[in-house]
Amino acid sequence: MSIRIGIMGYGNLGRGIECAVKQNDDMELAAVFTRRDPSTLSILTEGVPVYSADEAEAHKDEIDVLILCGGSATDLPKQTREYVKYFNVVDSFDTHAKIPEHFAAVDEVANASGKIGIISVGWDPGMFSLNRLYANAILPNGMDYTFWGKGVSQGHSDAIRRVEGVLNGKQYTIPVEAALEAVRSGENPDLTTRQKHTRECFVVAAEGADKAKIEAEIKNMPNYFADYDTTVHFITEEELEREHGGIPHGGFVIRSGKTGWNEENSHVIEYSLKLDSNPEFTASVIAAYARAAYKLNKEGVSGCKTAFDIAPAYLSKLSGEEIRAHLL
Amino acid sequence: MSIRIGIMGYGNLGRGIECAVKQNDDMELAAVFTRRDPSTLSILTEGVPVYSADEAEAHKDEIDVLILCGGSATDLPKQTREYVKYFNVVDSFDTHAKIPEHFAAVDEVANASGKIGIISVGWDPGMFSLNRLYANAILPNGMDYTFWGKGVSQGHSDAIRRVEGVLNGKQYTIPVEAALEAVRSGENPDLTTRQKHTRECFVVAAEGADKAKIEAEIKNMPNYFADYDTTVHFITEEELEREHGGIPHGGFVIRSGKTGWNEENSHVIEYSLKLDSNPEFTASVIAAYARAAYKLNKEGVSGCKTAFDIAPAYLSKLSGEEIRAHLL
Repeated sequence: MSIRIGIMGYGNLGRGIECAVKQNDDMELAAVFTRRDPSTLSILTEGVPVYSADEAEAHKDEIDVLILCGGSATDLPKQTREYVKYFNVVDSFDTHAKIPEHFAAVDEVANASGKIGIISVGWDPGMFSLNRLYANAILPNGMDYTFWGKGVSQGHSDAIRRVEGVLNGKQYTIPVEAALEAVRSGENPDLTTRQKHTRECFVVAAEGADKAKIEAEIKNMPNYFADYDTTVHFITEEELEREHGGIPHGGFVIRSGKTGWNEENSHVIEYSLKLDSNPEFTASVIAAYARAAYKLNKEGVSGCKTAFDIAPAYLSKLSGEEIRAHLL
Repeated sequence: MSIRIGIMGYGNLGRGIECAVKQNDDMELAAVFTRRDPSTLSILTEGVPVYSADEAEAHKDEIDVLILCGGSATDLPKQTREYVKYFNVVDSFDTHAKIPEHFAAVDEVANASGKIGIISVGWDPGMFSLNRLYANAILPNGMDYTFWGKGVSQGHSDAIRRVEGVLNGKQYTIPVEAALEAVRSGENPDLTTRQKHTRECFVVAAEGADKAKIEAEIKNMPNYFADYDTTVHFITEEELEREHGGIPHGGFVIRSGKTGWNEENSHVIEYSLKLDSNPEFTASVIAAYARAAYKLNKEGVSGCKTAFDIAPAYLSKLSGEEIRAHLL
């Protein structure tokens, strides 16, 4: 019997989950829930019902794991603790500073309901976090570095679009190659914000807008751009759609450390991702953790969990014998 | 109270464990066991007793985790199942094909004794295996690639030294950059053995030896060199010691895969290691899993485990709250 997946929220991430479920032959899509009028929503999978989010509880016996595809700012802080009353859930809550609070709230409800809630799943937090943990445990005497990109930052793209005279825009975060090389050499450099990443903006300006003013306003924007070397390109809406329509992302987690009686030997552990589609990759990680949620709850495990708490074998559809024989 | 570590076998790996224990302030070295005459062995840590391997059982109450530093060919198949009768143990058994058999033997004894035996810990098998498992679970539609090096292969160095007229030698396994780039591009190439790695040999020949004959014999050696582009350099013993005295290693585990409704998006997950000292890094991984063995056994867990079976949080000396706050 396959794992029956429900999707709560049908945006980029929800569609990514739908695609991931199609690739995992031990899973099936059981239902999609939306806050829009369900009759207006057309999904990719044939024969799967679309319900109003309000009706979710009524379908709890039809779903093994409900994947919450809302945003971290306002949706997930409410949704995860609400739905874990009735469902095993997985979310991608990514507001790093608020994870402890989110964990505690979800844990309390999940322990009471006997369900499992896996939070903060994706690549950062998620796979990057795992690599930070493993590398820190292996090399206690070392330094961590995280670089993001090359990829589209939604928050910075939004910031550009709020500038007066800007019709549309997209921002790429780009790691500085020289900084990456310095880290890989094992010399444990201290790097400023400016030394680690540059920002490249593609901007569609309104007709007659003052481009020099727009450029200055972007480059001097505090928090978002002022601490970075920022490049601004003005292009047409057509060019923006044609050349910058994707949502690529990725990055690097590197730890370098010393071992030996006199710390005479250097080691570098590097994990990197190069992703054509940020939401589809995030969804693929979530699908694997949905399998883990299903298997763990079958074993009687409940409560809030993160990637740190889940043995890797639970992510695989293969048996213990198979993974030892083929992947170890 | 710190975790009391015992070391069984004091070669390169055993010394690496000793160094790793020094770096982990929640561990202490309790004893070293050797098959040599203990009085002839001088270890780095002051005040720690060296005992004969035969006496190990008598010291079982002084040790929380015994780390088995023997070889995979003949030592570990006997030692792990023997010592897990009395100790929680960790080994680095790396004969991939015999892991299922080793697992079954250790599991039976460990379940009976109530101890935990973590096998095949290190970087391959070990961290590379983990990365294969995670990447396969995330991208079910994809291909795996493992490259080793640049690093010293002990087995190939031994093979060189068995050639007539050779006094000493060292072999480096080197991944082919063009193959790495093809894999990173996401084009899922089919690569032959020869396309993936080259082999570089540094050889000290006996005076008057026929160098052309040695070179031909090495290059045509079946299994070891015949399937690779191999380079042979003749150097002096002094140069070998000065330039090639280290035991560096490393490698790359890469999975590329497709997502999307029509598999229109490519993703590349890459994990790489660059290690000055193969045995010290292996020892550092083992030390982290020794912590996991200790914590799991305290919780009542017994039996044989691999890295696949152990939730990442067990490797860290930090609490769940701390890792969620700082590493997630």
